[in-house]
Order: sequence, then C-alpha cells, then structure tokens
Amino acid sequence: MRFVHDSLPQRVCFGSGEAASQLTAQVGELGAANVMLIASPSEMHLAEQVAAYVPVAIRHDDVVMHVPVEVAERARRAAVDNGADALVSVGGGSTTGLAKAVAMTTGLPIIAVPTTNAGSEATPVWGLTEGAKKTTGIDERVLPRVIIYDAELTMSLPVDLSVASGLNALAHCVDSMWAPKADPVNAALAAEGIRALAEGLPKVVADPMALDGREQALYAAYLSAAAFASAGSGLHHKICHVLGGKYNLPHAQTHATVLPYVLAFNAPAAPEAARRIAAAFHGTAFNGTAFGGESALGGLVELKQELNAPRALADYGFTEDSIAEAAQAILPSVPPSNPRPVTADDLRLLLRAAWSGADPTTIG
Amino acid sequence: MRFVHDSLPQRVCFGSGEAASQLTAQVGELGAANVMLIASPSEMHLAEQVAAYVPVAIRHDDVVMHVPVEVAERARRAAVDNGADALVSVGGGSTTGLAKAVAMTTGLPIIAVPTTNAGSEATPVWGLTEGAKKTTGIDERVLPRVIIYDAELTMSLPVDLSVASGLNALAHCVDSMWAPKADPVNAALAAEGIRALAEGLPKVVADPMALDGREQALYAAYLSAAAFASAGSGLHHKICHVLGGKYNLPHAQTHATVLPYVLAFNAPAAPEAARRIAAAFHGTAFNGTAFGGESALGGLVELKQELNAPRALADYGFTEDSIAEAAQAILPSVPPSNPRPVTADDLRLLLRAAWSGADPTTIG
Repeated sequence: MRFVHDSLPQRVCFGSGEAASQLTAQVGELGAANVMLIASPSEMHLAEQVAAYVPVAIRHDDVVMHVPVEVAERARRAAVDNGADALVSVGGGSTTGLAKAVAMTTGLPIIAVPTTNAGSEATPVWGLTEGAKKTTGIDERVLPRVIIYDAELTMSLPVDLSVASGLNALAHCVDSMWAPKADPVNAALAAEGIRALAEGLPKVVADPMALDGREQALYAAYLSAAAFASAGSGLHHKICHVLGGKYNLPHAQTHATVLPYVLAFNAPAAPEAARRIAAAFHGTAFNGTAFGGESALGGLVELKQELNAPRALADYGFTEDSIAEAAQAILPSVPPSNPRPVTADDLRLLLRAAWSGADPTTIG
Repeated sequence: MRFVHDSLPQRVCFGSGEAASQLTAQVGELGAANVMLIASPSEMHLAEQVAAYVPVAIRHDDVVMHVPVEVAERARRAAVDNGADALVSVGGGSTTGLAKAVAMTTGLPIIAVPTTNAGSEATPVWGLTEGAKKTTGIDERVLPRVIIYDAELTMSLPVDLSVASGLNALAHCVDSMWAPKADPVNAALAAEGIRALAEGLPKVVADPMALDGREQALYAAYLSAAAFASAGSGLHHKICHVLGGKYNLPHAQTHATVLPYVLAFNAPAAPEAARRIAAAFHGTAFNGTAFGGESALGGLVELKQELNAPRALADYGFTEDSIAEAAQAILPSVPPSNPRPVTADDLRLLLRAAWSGADPTTIG
C-alpha cells in the first residue's frame, strides 16, 4: 500500500428544499455582507429566490459556456468595483466556472448552489477559453468553500440528461480506480458513488418526479467529481477524449458505450478495483433493488440494460474503418499507471467491440 | 438524505519504509528551515533517524501522557525561543498531542509520523490536563497538515496491543454509522475502515512480522479516527465511557466486548448502516479471506472469534449487581440521534448479555 491522498477543505450541505435556508446560514457563518450573486439569465429568477435572505450587493448574469477570458474579466471587475466579499453561484458548470474565475484573482470564497449534476463545484479545477483555446488548471482558491446541494433544484433536468450525466459520473468513478493518482481513500468514495448511481438512476427513469433518485444522482455527481479530480484521467477517459475530439462523437453516449469494454479489459489485472466495483453494485442488491451482478462487469451491464443506455459507437457515427486510426491516436496517451499494458492491438479489439456493441466479456 | 459534511485539509502519505524520504520531501514542500522535532525519550533515537535529512533546530523529548498544561507551556516556549517554523512529531498519541498543544498557540504546521495506531493525527481534537481535570476541544489549527504513515514503524507494537487498538478502531467505525453527526460520506470511509480491519487484523495475529496486516491496521486507524472525529460519539461510546469511568474497566477490552451487543440492538433500526457494515465484512469474503458473514453482526462475531477477542465483561471485573446501576448512569447520555429509542430496560438487557458474554443475537 503506497499512496498520497490530499483531502481538501470543503463543506458539503445536502438537503432537499433547504437551499434558501442553508444559503442564509452559510453566508452568515462566512460573515459576508456584500454577496455577488452569479447565475445565467435563465436561472437568475431561481437564484434570487434561493438568495432571498442574503445580503446581495450585485447580481451578475453575464454567464457564457467555457468561460471566455473577457467574460471572466468583466465578472472580476464587477466583483472588485462592488466590494463583493463572497461569491454565490446558482447554476450548472458554466456558472460555477465563472465564480471560480473570479475567485482565482480575488481570493473571494465561493458558495456554490448547483442546479445540474456537473460536479465542477467539488473540484479545484478552473477553465478559461481564449478564442478556440481552452486552458485548465488547478488552484485551491477556486475550490468552493461550501456546496449547497438541494435535489429539488435538479428536478427540472430532463430524464435523458440525468441518465447521461449519471453515466458520465459512473465513468469517473470506475476510471478513478486505476487512474494515475488512484488511492484507496479515493477509491472508497468512488465506490460509494457507484453504489448511489446504481441505486438512484433506475429510480430517476422509473419516476422522474421522485426526489429519492434525484438525490442519489446528485450525491453521486459530487463523489464522482471529487474522485476524478483527485485521481486524474485513466484509460477510459483517454480513449473517450480522443474519440470525442477526433470523430466528434457525443460526450455522454461515448462514455456510456466505451465504459464496459475498458472495465472488461482492466478488471482481470486490477482485482482490488474489480472487487470494489462489484461490491458497490452488489451492495445495491443487498439493499433490495434489482441488481445482483456478482462481478464488476455484470453489475455495470445490468445497470446499462435497465437504463436502456447507449451500447454501440456505430449508432453515433463512428465507422469501422476508423478503428485502426483511432487506436494509433489513443496509444500515446495511455496512462503508464494502467493496471495492464495496452498495445495497439488491444485498443483495436476494444474499439471494434465498442463499435459493434459486442458482448464486453469477449474483451480481456 | 440530509447532512452536512466537512472535509478537512490534510495530506496523507502512506508508504512502508519511506518515512525518512517522505518526511524530507514534505518538510521541503512546506519550506521549513527550523524544525522542532518532538518525540518521547524512548523514541527520540528513531525520530532522529526519520528526520536525518531534515533541518532540525530543536529536539524536544519532554512528552507526558495526557499533555499536562505545564508540559505544553514548556514546549510552546521552546518552539518560540528557537524560532521553529514547523513541528515534526514522531510517536504515539501523547507525542502527537504535545505537537497539537504547540500548534494551538503558535499556529505552526505539524507533520505527524505515527508509530502506533492511536489515530490522533487524523483529527482536529486537542486535549490538555490540569491536575486530574482533562479538557478537550476542536481547533482546525491543531490538525496536522501532513501525516506520514510508515507501517514499518509499527512492527514493534505487540500483537495484543495491535488487536486491542484495532478493535477500538472497529468500534469507532461501527459507532460512527449512527453517531450524532453521521453522514453518508463519512459512513463510506468508516466502512472502508471496517473492511481493512477485517482483512488486516487476522493477518497481524497469524504473522506479526508480515507487513501487510500492519499496513491494513494502520490505514484503518487513520480512517476510524477521521470518521469518529467527524461523526461524534454514538451509543456504543457512551456506554463504554460510563463503564470505563464508573467501574474502571479496561478500555480496549470493554469496547471489544460491548460492540456486538450495540450492533445487535441498533442494526434492525438502521438497515442502511447494517447494510454498509455487512458489505464491508462481505467485501472481505469477496477478496478471498475467511469471513463471509452475510449480516453485519455475523461478520463482527466471526472476526472476534478469529481474533480470540474479549467476550464477557464479567472477565474484566464487571459484576452482575452493577447492571441496574450502570444502566441508569448510561441512560441520560444516550444520543438522541440513536436509530431506536433506548430505555433503562434495554440497557439492562444489553449489559446483562455483555456481562455474561451471551449470544448477541438475543438482543435486538
């Protein structure tokens, strides 16, 4: 056993229907008197309801996807000009991202109130774009001091988007088991994320208005983001990154399709990770719901079937004649930490199976 | 789902045989140039080996159990007079405790190198004694910035002490499932602690010189301390606190004896906790070792049998005629958060079973 695990200072407040009261309490605890409230135009009304009892000095709705630097600059200036002493973001990844850009230069504390399962609020990762170029980095100052999770704010997310983001979160959890900075503490939290997703996602599909499933999905989004930020990108994310960038395949569907093949490939060489993943799915069975996969892969395949999740890259525009080229493109980015060595032949086999939607047990 | 979880800023470095190299790296990362090295007289030689490549400005071996205030004052003065810019503690709970007392008033960062499974290094809890009076408190400044775990430093711990501290850690993990500030993130880490103890303790008993079991026990000591500090004292600890204080029963043996009865009592009213505990024991079975308890209690009972652990309070001086009095003494301190209400009758039944070492399934 050999690892370095950094735990980061953050308070997570979880409670459905409690966003407004919890935000009031947490702003009070920070002693903030001039809050900068950040939300997109479509969510500012909601943000104002959540912040109804908070001393808001300035409302800022100039939110743009991927945080262009000029948008960040305007927000930073607004914060300084108005003497903001805390940032409250209410929204998805772009809104949280803008608050992070402001915290980066001002050092102001962020209280994040997520309305999606994006997970950015649980990481010290920032991103800025200049023209078409995206820069990302890690800075502890951008990690929100407090997260307020209220699953009622996610009820309006369409079911297919919830399932897609849920399967993304699942990929983060599974891949973090063998990512470059994997460690057992982090793996325990990732396994808890898998358990919550396996329990929650079928409930979201069965009854989109039931709070319970939304709560499990939101809770898992937090765990998966924290696990991924701590462990880094493993083989699965390297593969999906190339497929997404080079062939313009849709993000969530690519993740959902590729994951079982990477798990089938790595599991035999990573028995401890496979045990944790299997136990996470098995724990669900123990809890009385439908899954009882004794193996890690069995649990994942059963969950995907229940969710009617994407199963073949061919369905999303990836073609058979791209397989060899894609394998070559992926090869240099394979993490040296991967539990088994990966050859171009391995990648071709894996991609061919993912392309056709073949039984993943044929891999490995 | 409703909780508040605070994660605290701390780096955990785990690696057997790496204490000296890791300490050198971590002191370097802090930029410290005048280290105060704290160790008891019997461990100062070891501490000097571990700190061989570190700029030590002052060695301090004036370590006394329970940190008397005058001992704390002398250490604080030594730190200030010598211009210390970091504290390195090498030792057990008393040594870590003294470093905390210094950090409390000076704000100096601590790097803790534990040589026992005490766990104090993973908490922001400090303790000081004045005469016979012990005061404890919580202060984030006393939380060691870095912990360096090197299981080779724990190899000289006698097996019975390792098992006793391991069962204490197990009690922390189990009790934290329903303690006043229990939350699912913390419960996942506590479950990981149970898994590591169920795997590691039998190995320590089977082969005291095998590193693997020591590593699991040390890793679990970290998780259990962090879980306990976060969740607070549950029913089990309240019972043991009264038994220890009022009847002078030995600490570790009391914990080991009482735990199955509290688990048997609470499990039916805490199915989620019971599921997590059972899965933690079951995960061990999945991993190929001997335990396969399908229930939480079954897993605990099998582990205790394998470890030949204490089983009856009668063996440690607790008498039948004290049962009623003890139940009355415990009653006012029962946490309101306990998953089921607790009456004096319940406590009498529980204590009678623990006194005689009866089958715990008769409780609950």
